Amino acid sequence: MRKPAMTVAELDRFLEKEFPQFYHRGSGVAIEDAWFHGCRVRQAYRETFIRPGGTISGPTMMALADFTMYVAVLASIGPVPLAVTTNFNVNFLRRPAQRDLIAEAKLMKLGKRLAVGEVAICSEGHEDPVAHVTSTYSIPARHLP
Amino acid sequence: MRKPAMTVAELDRFLEKEFPQFYHRGSGVAIEDAWFHGCRVRQAYRETFIRPGGTISGPTMMALADFTMYVAVLASIGPVPLAVTTNFNVNFLRRPAQRDLIAEAKLMKLGKRLAVGEVAICSEGHEDPVAHVTSTYSIPARHLP
Amino acid sequence: MRKPAMTVAELDRFLEKEFPQFYHRGSGVAIEDAWFHGCRVRQAYRETFIRPGGTISGPTMMALADFTMYVAVLASIGPVPLAVTTNFNVNFLRRPAQRDLIAEAKLMKLGKRLAVGEVAICSEGHEDPVAHVTSTYSIPARHLP
Amino acid sequence: MRKPAMTVAELDRFLEKEFPQFYHRGSGVAIEDAWFHGCRVRQAYRETFIRPGGTISGPTMMALADFTMYVAVLASIGPVPLAVTTNFNVNFLRRPAQRDLIAEAKLMKLGKRLAVGEVAICSEGHEDPVAHVTSTYSIPARHLP
Repeated sequence: MRKPAMTVAELDRFLEKEFPQFYHRGSGVAIEDAWFHGCRVRQAYRETFIRPGGTISGPTMMALADFTMYVAVLASIGPVPLAVTTNFNVNFLRRPAQRDLIAEAKLMKLGKRLAVGEVAICSEGHEDPVAHVTSTYSIPARHLP
Repeated sequence: MRKPAMTVAELDRFLEKEFPQFYHRGSGVAIEDAWFHGCRVRQAYRETFIRPGGTISGPTMMALADFTMYVAVLASIGPVPLAVTTNFNVNFLRRPAQRDLIAEAKLMKLGKRLAVGEVAICSEGHEDPVAHVTSTYSIPARHLP
Repeated sequence: MRKPAMTVAELDRFLEKEFPQFYHRGSGVAIEDAWFHGCRVRQAYRETFIRPGGTISGPTMMALADFTMYVAVLASIGPVPLAVTTNFNVNFLRRPAQRDLIAEAKLMKLGKRLAVGEVAICSEGHEDPVAHVTSTYSIPARHLP
Repeated sequence: MRKPAMTVAELDRFLEKEFPQFYHRGSGVAIEDAWFHGCRVRQAYRETFIRPGGTISGPTMMALADFTMYVAVLASIGPVPLAVTTNFNVNFLRRPAQRDLIAEAKLMKLGKRLAVGEVAICSEGHEDPVAHVTSTYSIPARHLP
């Protein structure tokens, strides 16, 4: 099993500096684990996420999935501030509970120019995913793995 | 040309009540126009949208596109608080300018159970889209058009 | 573990009758296994699949994935001739070998109106997928599970 | 208006040589027009395309859309045998008629490494599309436009 390119502590430091708007103490987002080709991120429940019907909003889950994929890329190739999402496809599967969300990313391909992965998001304590994402990150030429 | 099911003023009132977390004076989001099968929404530029490299974050654009599709559904079938996104696919095409974003939605299908549309997002004053979305909304059974 | 709604022998008989254009002895497609919420289908290698560069064509893999999802739906809810694909998203991950393709489908949601699943396609004897699909089938109202 | 990189006659010759399995007299596929950033392709109706319910099969439309996007890439950057699809997303919108299909592609981005476009497929003589595709082609490094 290959070691991750960055530990959780290194990811924390990098992201607090590079993504202060999204990744800060108040956001409720925490990287729980990271490994080569994947990671797990928790989004603490906030009442502001709620939309009509009592469900957590789709954009809350999309932002979490996009961030989780980026963390999986960083954990696999090291600090790359300029990797960008090129494609993102999400299926919303069931109504999330009013609880924390747990997102787990797995890279399916880590190529020279593109990383492709999937992210499953579950409500904490539930097994069936509330959303499933596949997405592609473009990797800047000078940061090839 | 068929009239929209809701005017911009009616959409404003409905959304301020149903989506106060996303749609309020401070959010910088404004419905500019709405018609049967489409609409145009502006997101005012905010420094908080910026991510490394000076670009507007992907999740900012995804939230705008998802909202714009919902407005197009409302403008076509009337007030439906419980319509939900089931699928959302976005291609990020070019780096947005540090300016307002203009999103325009067009429904390609308005069926009994599903509405499918596309949303193009441009930086204000630029013609080439920065992002292109296709998405599907599921329409609750009792709100068939 | 819930039993599948149709066995492999029942799927074979149903599909030979309903899909004679795609599912016949000459097509090289064989259902290897089926279970509640999933199945595995083999596509025998044919030289006619090849496109420039020696790779198996994308549409060959798309047709296989679409069929495999349909088999997974049938195995989960029984014979439904009129289920139709509404959304299909594929990421091509690596160049397939000139060998049989093995597609494995897993339903992530089996709802009243929509079934959502993923399909991974591998070259026989290789572990890393050559393509990954997520797709949605619409289920006719009178065939609810 | 910039001229296309290849005329219809040049595309025909290139594709008959490079894609003989898909593009030959018997396939019923014909390039009707091509321009910088787009093209229009016709697929003649065949009874073998039909699946249960009398509709043209999804994979028939997917193969047509994938080919049409490739023709639009060729028309924009010239002969590139090794461009490959990396992502392909299709929404099936309505039941096609038992008639020819007309696919029209438009590139939304033609970058150094990626081309992103959309394809609308209509039944001949009908205005509302039966399917809508967005897809991404990866362009080999030595064929940059």
